[in-house]
Amino acid sequence: MITPKTLKGFRDFLPAEARKRQLVINTLKSVFELYGFEPLETPTLEYAEMLTGKYGDEGEKLMYHFEDNGGRKVAMRYDQTVPLARVVAQYSNELPMPFKRYQIQPVWRAENTQKGRYREFLQCDIDTVGTNSLNADAETIAVTAKAFETLGFDDYKIMINDRSVFGTLPVSAIITIDKLKKIGAEKVKKELKEKGIDPEELTKVMNSHLPETLKTIIDTAVKLGIDKTKLVFDPTIARGLNYYTGCIFETEIATYFGGSVCSGGRYDNLIGMFINRNIPSVGTSFGLDRIIDAMDEKNMFSDKLNTVKVLVTVFDKKFEDKSTEIATTLRESNINTEVYLYSDAKMEKQLKYADQKNIPFVVIMGPQEIEKNLVTLKNLSTHEQKMIPITEIISIVSSRT
Amino acid sequence: MITPKTLKGFRDFLPAEARKRQLVINTLKSVFELYGFEPLETPTLEYAEMLTGKYGDEGEKLMYHFEDNGGRKVAMRYDQTVPLARVVAQYSNELPMPFKRYQIQPVWRAENTQKGRYREFLQCDIDTVGTNSLNADAETIAVTAKAFETLGFDDYKIMINDRSVFGTLPVSAIITIDKLKKIGAEKVKKELKEKGIDPEELTKVMNSHLPETLKTIIDTAVKLGIDKTKLVFDPTIARGLNYYTGCIFETEIATYFGGSVCSGGRYDNLIGMFINRNIPSVGTSFGLDRIIDAMDEKNMFSDKLNTVKVLVTVFDKKFEDKSTEIATTLRESNINTEVYLYSDAKMEKQLKYADQKNIPFVVIMGPQEIEKNLVTLKNLSTHEQKMIPITEIISIVSSRT
Repeated sequence: MITPKTLKGFRDFLPAEARKRQLVINTLKSVFELYGFEPLETPTLEYAEMLTGKYGDEGEKLMYHFEDNGGRKVAMRYDQTVPLARVVAQYSNELPMPFKRYQIQPVWRAENTQKGRYREFLQCDIDTVGTNSLNADAETIAVTAKAFETLGFDDYKIMINDRSVFGTLPVSAIITIDKLKKIGAEKVKKELKEKGIDPEELTKVMNSHLPETLKTIIDTAVKLGIDKTKLVFDPTIARGLNYYTGCIFETEIATYFGGSVCSGGRYDNLIGMFINRNIPSVGTSFGLDRIIDAMDEKNMFSDKLNTVKVLVTVFDKKFEDKSTEIATTLRESNINTEVYLYSDAKMEKQLKYADQKNIPFVVIMGPQEIEKNLVTLKNLSTHEQKMIPITEIISIVSSRT
Repeated sequence: MITPKTLKGFRDFLPAEARKRQLVINTLKSVFELYGFEPLETPTLEYAEMLTGKYGDEGEKLMYHFEDNGGRKVAMRYDQTVPLARVVAQYSNELPMPFKRYQIQPVWRAENTQKGRYREFLQCDIDTVGTNSLNADAETIAVTAKAFETLGFDDYKIMINDRSVFGTLPVSAIITIDKLKKIGAEKVKKELKEKGIDPEELTKVMNSHLPETLKTIIDTAVKLGIDKTKLVFDPTIARGLNYYTGCIFETEIATYFGGSVCSGGRYDNLIGMFINRNIPSVGTSFGLDRIIDAMDEKNMFSDKLNTVKVLVTVFDKKFEDKSTEIATTLRESNINTEVYLYSDAKMEKQLKYADQKNIPFVVIMGPQEIEKNLVTLKNLSTHEQKMIPITEIISIVSSRT
């Protein structure tokens, strides 16, 4: 007998977790679409040569790759940017430009597993390909703000920077400055000195003026309806600077210490990699796992989070048809309804089942109810119960959900 | 320079196709949830030993498996039933029983590629685990009917059978009888004879009476609101009979010749494979690719299928802010809106862009409109255009979508 288990870094999502994921994904999708982004899907497996050489040595090491049954060298999706670049090159004649797409698919990285780091995780990306309009940058920031608002966060901030702030500083210095929040100013200065760089460069960067392009981007974001106080110029954020070419942004939740929940920027040299010319692009990536962690910590998933609204119990095998009929009536009113699949289960067991599945309402249909042509509705959180006509149940349940 | 290309049997879904997939998936999900099924997700990679020995020699050959960086033998999801069995065994203490779950994830099979057969494809499954109640069988059939109704099919039929119809016939005979629709009665009889079986067994099977259990299942399905004329007893359908233990069903679309679009049945011996005891279960699987093919052939995806409802064009760089403001107003009314990301594009080019993306409405904001404080709305299918207040645009667009 094989012991059932999952691979390290890979997860099952049972309904209680899967529901949360769906809620967040659906919210993100609706915001992406509100701003005109359209869905794109790419395959899980690609010819390995499409992906190799694109993620640096570290990335290469973490990539899942193998030889398929036909002897082809294949690799599993490592991110959604390189496949996007491939798509842009492969379908250049049919894609409308600018190409605004969102993509929500899993990626695989053989990372050392640790809290909050998985080997299979979902990426939720938006990118605008083929325009250097700063409005695209502003829109990306606006989508970010709108997404966190819609999810119910009020303590998020989008930190914005532009790579021009670093002037001619070498990448090694920028990497050190990027650590400011983690290690503090003293240690950054010490590290800069060790690297042979004047520690006062940190002060210079910290005192940078807001670059003109960022001013324009922020003004446009405000015109797009975004609360200006949520946008903060932070000259010390850098991210992968050899990748970004213009503005850069990170999103922080004040109460969450797991890192940025959404980050991106403008990268004008990357998307053209398959056709050897620059295609100006801007995009961002939402971290689903971190967003869910942050929401969990703040109890933002209410006890109302459920799939099924009503469990119609079966009082006795001989009343089972009555229960089926009531369920059918509720479903006709578009109420997610389950009939307990009877196998001699006591009412207590059926109520416990509803509780386990977070079902808010239970319908009971016993001899009394049948005689009076009524139905008993029990609210599992208030424990209130009353015998009422079925039409009333529909309005009570619909108003709660 | 690497030529961008995808692996044989693997597909990109550009927005026009991805939109169709989302429409069908969302419809299926909403129907699954209406009947009380909840989402489950399992990992793409499993320990190979979880999957091997479960799909027969043929399945084993088609499975994608490899050694990961840590030397573990791993395999890619081949179906959603074996992972379900693993989940049921692994979380037996926390899963409410009966466990009603839906799962919509890709699976991988190194099949010979041909029309309609892919190496990566999405499975959309519902299963009810842990009950032998025939109501569960009826519910599965009801979900099937409701799904096709909701998708807009009127010419579907659900063919129902029960394995008891085949009595003591050997599996080899049943496999032959299952070919009836493909090869006709004469050839079936010939093949039976060749296998040393009385050809008249076909006639006997074809004249079978409706088994009592199927009668009960059909009656319950009708109580669940299903049109009885859509349910057809067909004693010759068999499917993988070494797998199914009770009722079996297949769904056919009259105008579609690509095969069953949804099939399943009761399988009481499979889900307990990891714990060595029988767990009675029933389920079905919707074939997304075939459903989309059938809908394409019948032109069921209307020209209305789009993500973005309005493109706000930019008449001139100096009016760009006005366009942004209008887009913001439309988005506040929850209308998916895109502002053309200006780069000196002529109005004609912007209209063509809207057309390419299937955007039904275009807003134009020129000097005339600004002077009058109105907005021009152009309907791209009727070519009608009028200068109206923005509030009117909101009601026109909302009523069309």
